Amino acid sequence: MGRWEPDAAGRLARAALELYSERGFDQTTALDIAERAGVTERTFFRHFADKREVLFDGSSALLNAVVASIAAAPEASKPLDVMGQAMQSGTALLEERRDHARLRAVAIAAHPSLQERELLKMSTLGEASAEALRARGVPSPAAELAADAGVAVFGRGFEAWIAPGETRTLAECIGDALAELRRLTA
Amino acid sequence: MGRWEPDAAGRLARAALELYSERGFDQTTALDIAERAGVTERTFFRHFADKREVLFDGSSALLNAVVASIAAAPEASKPLDVMGQAMQSGTALLEERRDHARLRAVAIAAHPSLQERELLKMSTLGEASAEALRARGVPSPAAELAADAGVAVFGRGFEAWIAPGETRTLAECIGDALAELRRLTA
Repeated sequence: MGRWEPDAAGRLARAALELYSERGFDQTTALDIAERAGVTERTFFRHFADKREVLFDGSSALLNAVVASIAAAPEASKPLDVMGQAMQSGTALLEERRDHARLRAVAIAAHPSLQERELLKMSTLGEASAEALRARGVPSPAAELAADAGVAVFGRGFEAWIAPGETRTLAECIGDALAELRRLTA
Repeated sequence: MGRWEPDAAGRLARAALELYSERGFDQTTALDIAERAGVTERTFFRHFADKREVLFDGSSALLNAVVASIAAAPEASKPLDVMGQAMQSGTALLEERRDHARLRAVAIAAHPSLQERELLKMSTLGEASAEALRARGVPSPAAELAADAGVAVFGRGFEAWIAPGETRTLAECIGDALAELRRLTA
């Protein structure tokens, strides 16, 4: 690392979101983002592989929290309970950032290429969750279906959480989505 | 349309799959695919927006079958039963093409850009299903969660169906995945 750049990744993520909102994803370069954040283009690429990735700064932290929670769940827990708990455990990173999450969702919805990257992140979260469930001895396809259900519950809970006027926490929105899924399949 | 080109879309899809398998996605151009299929590049772009889209030839037919099935379900049917039936109704287009589906899955797994496009198609199927459920009077978020569950059951059923040595039909694989999901949430 060169000169001191406190929270360069966070500043780059905020700068990217501002620029995508102001002028659009296609009209923004990695250099533009770096300049807005007050760092060099080289620093941008030290943190992010491309200008899509910069909006998904927190996704590996979320995935790690979810996988760790699945691994640490009590042995007797049922797969869907394990997934519900794991998805809620990942929310601590997000609860304080609802306004940022709203702006980010608008930017992603505006560009198919960003939607695709988001879907890939959610799919990766699902596959990692399924693997962590199999490592606990949950057989296929129960492991994969429980993981998919967990990701769906996270996604729909997140959607509710960023809706205008919503006051529940993200963890509550996810818990309510899981309860709704149970009612549907009963 | 210019000269007579029987099933140009089907021939282009088969040619693309051959070329992606032989030399890889990045090393194949739309012109290469058109030449292999015996049509012009112009014909390629009359049928497909880009060289990713050519592998997703059947996705709008699947979506239409699913949405039509949701709309036609008996009024008293529960959302998840409606989704299970709808997902199975889309399989008629696929049952005879298991070997093609296997080759296609290998080609998609080999390239992140194709994985992203597949995820976008599945997401589109989920959103269209949720909309069709809401049109039946299913409230949010039950409609969205039932749609997500249906898409997960389709995806995991499809995965099982193309596994080596699998003899169940796609409709059976989907039915078994739905039964497994019900056991998980019970």
